Order: sequence, then structure tokens, then C-alpha cells
Amino acid sequence: MDRARLSFNQYTCRPWSLERAVDACVLRGIPSIAIWRDKIAEAGLARAVSLVRDAGLRVSSVCRGGFFPSPSATERVRRIDDNRRAIEEAAALGAPALVLVCGPAEGQPLADARAQVADGIAALVYDAAASGVRLAIEPLHPMMIAERSVVASLEEANGLAERFVSPAVGVVCDVYHVFWDATVEREIARAGERLCGFHVSDWTTPTGDVTADRAMIGDGCIDLRSMHAWAEAAGYRGDIEIEILNARAWETADLDAWLDRAVTRYEAVET
Amino acid sequence: MDRARLSFNQYTCRPWSLERAVDACVLRGIPSIAIWRDKIAEAGLARAVSLVRDAGLRVSSVCRGGFFPSPSATERVRRIDDNRRAIEEAAALGAPALVLVCGPAEGQPLADARAQVADGIAALVYDAAASGVRLAIEPLHPMMIAERSVVASLEEANGLAERFVSPAVGVVCDVYHVFWDATVEREIARAGERLCGFHVSDWTTPTGDVTADRAMIGDGCIDLRSMHAWAEAAGYRGDIEIEILNARAWETADLDAWLDRAVTRYEAVET
Repeated sequence: MDRARLSFNQYTCRPWSLERAVDACVLRGIPSIAIWRDKIAEAGLARAVSLVRDAGLRVSSVCRGGFFPSPSATERVRRIDDNRRAIEEAAALGAPALVLVCGPAEGQPLADARAQVADGIAALVYDAAASGVRLAIEPLHPMMIAERSVVASLEEANGLAERFVSPAVGVVCDVYHVFWDATVEREIARAGERLCGFHVSDWTTPTGDVTADRAMIGDGCIDLRSMHAWAEAAGYRGDIEIEILNARAWETADLDAWLDRAVTRYEAVET
Repeated sequence: MDRARLSFNQYTCRPWSLERAVDACVLRGIPSIAIWRDKIAEAGLARAVSLVRDAGLRVSSVCRGGFFPSPSATERVRRIDDNRRAIEEAAALGAPALVLVCGPAEGQPLADARAQVADGIAALVYDAAASGVRLAIEPLHPMMIAERSVVASLEEANGLAERFVSPAVGVVCDVYHVFWDATVEREIARAGERLCGFHVSDWTTPTGDVTADRAMIGDGCIDLRSMHAWAEAAGYRGDIEIEILNARAWETADLDAWLDRAVTRYEAVET
């Protein structure tokens, strides 16, 4: 795939500071970066903005908003407020999208939690549109439903996005989360202009923590070439994020080698 | 739920022989049992038949057939032959269903593997119908796609079953595998008379081996009451299998207590 559209999701090398991650992009000619909010907080927003501006980088997305469901109405309001701050941060950084990890049910029935996700997004659409930031609903793998996201398929994410007329609500296709789905080609096509993110890694069956055991591109069973072709056919022309969350890699000393390998494997995917 | 429809899937207490599992049913007044093929082989088919007959038990299903995809045509034929033997065993035991775990892709594209699953089932429909045994397609949790099953949702299983006019092709709803799916209520209704199995356990996020870390009924987040009600509304009146595959439980000395707790929790689910 084309390096001109490559984005480095910084959690691929999670231990790195934003400064370190920006340097890694510049060193490799990676033109775009996906930034996490804890790293923004660590650097300070103004410093984060100048870091990426001075380096001439695009910011493909900010990770992450969401986590809408809660049995407490007060808590739900607090989280919507926090999402508003996330939208502001994304706007300041020039990111076209705020990734939404929609959150677990927190003891509630799934249907109730899903309604709270829809309500949460509804409360943010105006702010997002006014800021030029899209709310990018990311369905997570169903194995993460109890801790991370009640939105567990692209079909569900599309249905949720389509509740809103505004193009400010979109969806993310992270191949790791959705490749297994027999409906995935259909649902990528259905997403069409709603598609506002495409994330790549690979699947091997997790053997420990299910949240951070993603495989290096090419080491698993995902047909990345086909999935990328489906996204292109759906009209996607945005950045493509390398996002390989792997706790074992984070513990190694040589994260530069991990990133180098990811870039090499990324470029080897024919399109 | 009603003990009159309770079935003990013997892998809930996997270390037990068939004799031991049959005794456990008799001791507790459990009227039905789901039997695995390795346990049939261990006892011998004739002995297995007399064991369940003498105990007055129903056999709710035989586990398992399937594993259709392979890059080798010779191997695919061999597996279809093995499925024919599984149908014969199920018929001999009076089981209404042979559970199909459809198999992983074995290095092939998912679409090709899925086509091989359809071909494999097609090759068995006549034998199944003639034997009075239904081919029960069980979608497995998407986290098991690389090792166990390319059929990963009830929507996919229904679509596969509907390719066949014969009622000999059905689907299984195992709550553990499908509860996360926003379409599950719709797909259980869609299954209707195709529904030929209902398996219960509970979901907590796996922390080790993803194949055998299922939770005790009531210890996780599955809304079993709703799922059971949806199955009943779809017309399901068959046995309900307790199937709690948990490697840690298998290593404990007191599997009787594990089964007792499962039965107590099962009966406590209001309907």
C-alpha cells in the first residue's frame, strides 16, 4: 500500500511520548499520525499542536471518545462533556475524525446500553459538525463486548450511523475487529462515504489479554489486500492507520524495529 | 428453566467417561445428555447405546461433526466420510441432531472455506434426512475463527441453512457464541423451525485459552432469560443443553459440585 496515505497510530509503540512518535514519523517519511488523548494530556494540547505542525504531519484521528453507557445519568452527562473536550482537541489538531469506542454495558441489558450509545452520539453531532470533526464509530471485536464496546459489528455501526442525517457521524473499519464477519464486504460498501477510518494489523488468536494481542501485518490470517480493495471500492481515500496493539511488543526494547517491520509489511500489501 | 428439558452436555465435566456422565444424569434426574464422539469411541458405540437406553436418557445431540474446509480435495472427502459415521452414531443413539462445528479456513480465503462448508453440508443432507438426524450448524464466537469455525454468526448460519430445502439442515443457538450480536433476536426468530439446539453457559472475557474459558451460568453478562424467551418465541421446544467448557473446572477434583451449581443456576433462570 502507498506510504503517502500511511498513518502511524502511536499506540503501535505505546510507551513512546508524542515527541518520540512524531520524530519516528519524520525519520521514516510517514506523513500522518493518529494520536491518543493520554499522550495529548501528557504533552499539553498547545505543545501537541505545535509538534505535529512543525513536523508537517497530518493527524488522521484522535483516539478516543465514546464510553457512553452507564447506569448513572450523571455519569452519562459527564462522559458526553468529556467527548466534547475530545472533539475540541481533535479540531485543534486538525484531525478529521474522533474515534469512538462506544463502551461496555456496565451491567445493563445490551439493548439499553446501545440506546445510550445512540443518545450519546446524538448529543455530540452538532458540536462535531461545527468543529469539522467526524464522530467515527469503531465496532470492536465481539470478544471485547464486556469491557470495551457494545458495538460489535460493522452492520451495527452502520445502522447506528445511518440514524443521523449528518455526515459528521461515520464509521471506522479496523480489519482486526471485523474481518471475520461474513457480511463485511457488504457492510464496507454500505458504509460508503460514512467510512472515515481504515486501520490495519493482523489476527492471530489471542493467548492472553484480548485487548492487546494483535499480530504484525502479514503474521496472521486477515486478507488485508481484499479488505483494502473493498474500502477503496466504497470510495475511501483517507489515511490508513497502522494500529498494532501488542503488549509483548511494548515490553521489548526495540520498538523502532517493530515499527519498521510494520511499515515494510504495509508497503508489501499489493493493491 | 424447566428440568424436564435439561440436557447435560458431558464436556461440562469433560474428564468424565460416558458411564460417569450417565450416572451423573440419573443421580440428578437430568433426563437428557449430549455426547461427544471421543467418549463414544472410548466406550464403544454399542455400549454407549445400551448405557443411555438402560438409564432411560434422551440424547439431545452428538458433538460433533463438521471441520469441512481443507485445501486438499482428498482431505475434504475424508472428512465428509467421517461426518457420515457421525450421523450413523447419532442415529444409533437416537439423537435428533449432529452438531456441526464447521471448521477453520486452513490457510484459504474465508470465502473459499465458507463455500467448502456449504459443499460439505450438501454432501450430507440426504444421509442426515434418511437417518432422521438433523445437521445442526453451530456458529462459534468470532474469536474462534482461526482454529474452529468460519461460521461466526447466527445470520451466517441461517443463510447457510436456508440454502437447503430440507429441514434436515438446522442451526444451534449457543448463547456464549452469539449473545453479543445486535441482530441476535432477529436471527433467532428467523431460524424458527431450523432451530435444533439451545446451549447455555455465560460470558466473562477469556483470560487464557479462548476455547475453554466459559463462565458458570449467572457469573457473566449474558441475558439468558431474554435469549431463552426469544428461542421459545421462535417455536423451540427441544432440550436445553448446559455446556460450560472451562479448563480450570476440568482440573478441579469436584466436578460434581460444578455440575450441581450449573443445574441450580439453570433452574433459577425465570421464564
